[in-house]
Amino acid sequence: MKKVAVIAAGQTPFGTHNGETMKTLFVRAFENALSEIENEIDFTRTSDVFIGNLGSGGSQLGNPAALMVEHIGLNGVSARRVENACASSGFAFRDAVQAIRKGADLAIAGGVEIMNDLPSTHQRYWLGVSGDTEWERTAGATFAGIYALLAKRHMVEYGTPREALAQIAVKNHKNAVDNPMAQFRKEISIDRVLSAPMVAAPLGLFDCCPTSDGASVTILASEEYAKELTDDPIWVTGSGAASDFLAIHDRPSLTTFEATKRASRQALEESGLQISDIDFVEVHDCFTIAELLAVEDLGFFEKGKAARAILDGETSLHGQIPVNASGGLKAKGHPLGATGTGQIAELYKQLKGRAGKRQIQEHNIGMAHNVGGSGATCAVHILRRDF
Amino acid sequence: MKKVAVIAAGQTPFGTHNGETMKTLFVRAFENALSEIENEIDFTRTSDVFIGNLGSGGSQLGNPAALMVEHIGLNGVSARRVENACASSGFAFRDAVQAIRKGADLAIAGGVEIMNDLPSTHQRYWLGVSGDTEWERTAGATFAGIYALLAKRHMVEYGTPREALAQIAVKNHKNAVDNPMAQFRKEISIDRVLSAPMVAAPLGLFDCCPTSDGASVTILASEEYAKELTDDPIWVTGSGAASDFLAIHDRPSLTTFEATKRASRQALEESGLQISDIDFVEVHDCFTIAELLAVEDLGFFEKGKAARAILDGETSLHGQIPVNASGGLKAKGHPLGATGTGQIAELYKQLKGRAGKRQIQEHNIGMAHNVGGSGATCAVHILRRDF
Repeated sequence: MKKVAVIAAGQTPFGTHNGETMKTLFVRAFENALSEIENEIDFTRTSDVFIGNLGSGGSQLGNPAALMVEHIGLNGVSARRVENACASSGFAFRDAVQAIRKGADLAIAGGVEIMNDLPSTHQRYWLGVSGDTEWERTAGATFAGIYALLAKRHMVEYGTPREALAQIAVKNHKNAVDNPMAQFRKEISIDRVLSAPMVAAPLGLFDCCPTSDGASVTILASEEYAKELTDDPIWVTGSGAASDFLAIHDRPSLTTFEATKRASRQALEESGLQISDIDFVEVHDCFTIAELLAVEDLGFFEKGKAARAILDGETSLHGQIPVNASGGLKAKGHPLGATGTGQIAELYKQLKGRAGKRQIQEHNIGMAHNVGGSGATCAVHILRRDF
Repeated sequence: MKKVAVIAAGQTPFGTHNGETMKTLFVRAFENALSEIENEIDFTRTSDVFIGNLGSGGSQLGNPAALMVEHIGLNGVSARRVENACASSGFAFRDAVQAIRKGADLAIAGGVEIMNDLPSTHQRYWLGVSGDTEWERTAGATFAGIYALLAKRHMVEYGTPREALAQIAVKNHKNAVDNPMAQFRKEISIDRVLSAPMVAAPLGLFDCCPTSDGASVTILASEEYAKELTDDPIWVTGSGAASDFLAIHDRPSLTTFEATKRASRQALEESGLQISDIDFVEVHDCFTIAELLAVEDLGFFEKGKAARAILDGETSLHGQIPVNASGGLKAKGHPLGATGTGQIAELYKQLKGRAGKRQIQEHNIGMAHNVGGSGATCAVHILRRDF
């Protein structure tokens, strides 16, 4: 299989961007990616562009891929929107990897989302449709409600303490302080998390990721072309993706995301690696319980053992396995369609050693884990330097 | 580059399917595809599934790809929605071709759309967002209005007679009579087209494609696996895709779709063919003028010369270059996201010699042409037997 390089990656800050549009945000992310590489890229060699986006209907821009490539100056290039709810750009990245593996010189994967221009009922609608509609949404199950059920069940099955979830929020807020792209750059105390207004028991306000606008862009190249452009490309050594039942009532377990397990197995197999080889990981923590499920399902900890490890600091920036050095969805922000390639942008920064104060010490091999719905779709990628 | 086979393709009838859902239609299309091949396919070898769909938000099923693969019995497999307006499944097919070319054994591309369960204002909204929103839709330009402008301009520049457009509708209705999958299986006279209620001058009711529900599925395999399954696979020899300015006011010409020209050039180059080598073509005739533009932009006729050829019967079923033997979007129907792979299903039938009364005599090499918006995205594929 052909080698695939990420030659540049970047993003806008995630947060509230009043006055910006999908187009202007996407252009800013593209320019931020370009700032990571000195040599000029010949974009006429671009085979395909893949753009993750969930709510373009809500924000009233259909057929958005053509519009986005037009505005980054690549009018004419083959482009399409990829939509898998919050895993949209994780899958866009996978499809760009496939384009390079089939022989293209250059491909682009990115994502963009505007959430703050919608009235809040409309937002809830757009988020809601990404879960199961027939059995869950129309019965009133919001995503906060679904993840609360998963958290409750995890507590029942494994005696997971509420404090472990709170500690995830505390850690991610702390990491985000040093990330200029993060939405919340402010530490919070565990007491504040525990005493916050309840959203869906046991999840309080600080267990939930925010509503975010933002965009992210990754530029991928063949081995040959990457070596013309840089002495030090980042390599994609594994791509895994999977699906699961959309409705959680169809699943044999509420405390495991099978799609995460399948996708990470594939990505590790392709890479020829064990989970213990991974130096750091960005996981999909739309709710604190989601991070706990992720680090267990990915295999960093046995099922039921992550809570202890989290409370012991093993997932903190200088712990055994740093999780969400960026601040994660929780504190960096979660502009749905932009989140997956935003994770890749963080991996790129860390692998290059350009992450500033939040730089992870061991940073040779990183993993990104992006989930759609409550585990219905999942993409996992492994990136490394010196390969 | 690795060879890519289509080992099966099928679809539901296009039309009004009261009581069906996206899931049930997708299952029916999958079963129809399976009926084309005798040997059992080992779907555990499936790498990825790509599903074209435009309006899942409108029909209230988000994150639909996971749901669709669950219902065809492939729960767990990597799947994503591909959205490029009416070219959604043309791009889904392209991405499945890329998956096989990078080394997968098996991939699936399909499309599905429910349009008739929406109130008509909602339908117009969903169609409308696929055009340019900022400059066109919010100024009142519907797709019928935009294509009417293109038709008027073509008449001004090339003296194109109204009758040539009407003749396209007459031919496509005639072809659809023998297509059991078509929505309108009834001949119409040129007088009826010319005297029909006006939609947007010069386009009348019979110049416009209908509102349709439907689904289509194509199953792609590597050369090695295809040869295990069938002695007579159909080969994909060329895949081309391109974009253009979404807003028509940005384009240098109103009578040419640059995306069509770019995509067909790519597909022909990959195939090592000239346009004159193509035996038959399915083009994207959402309006009669769109078919006329397509056969010129693809190069079957010089710009300005297609009208004469159409009136002379050169594009009819037994003419020099049969166009839309299926009935096209005009008479076979146009369930947005299902149209692109529906065209591939027609190519498959024709290339296999299984098209019954609408069988084209020379049927070695076929082309499919799928457009999103008013030419903002375009995918062109060339399929052949005996390769």
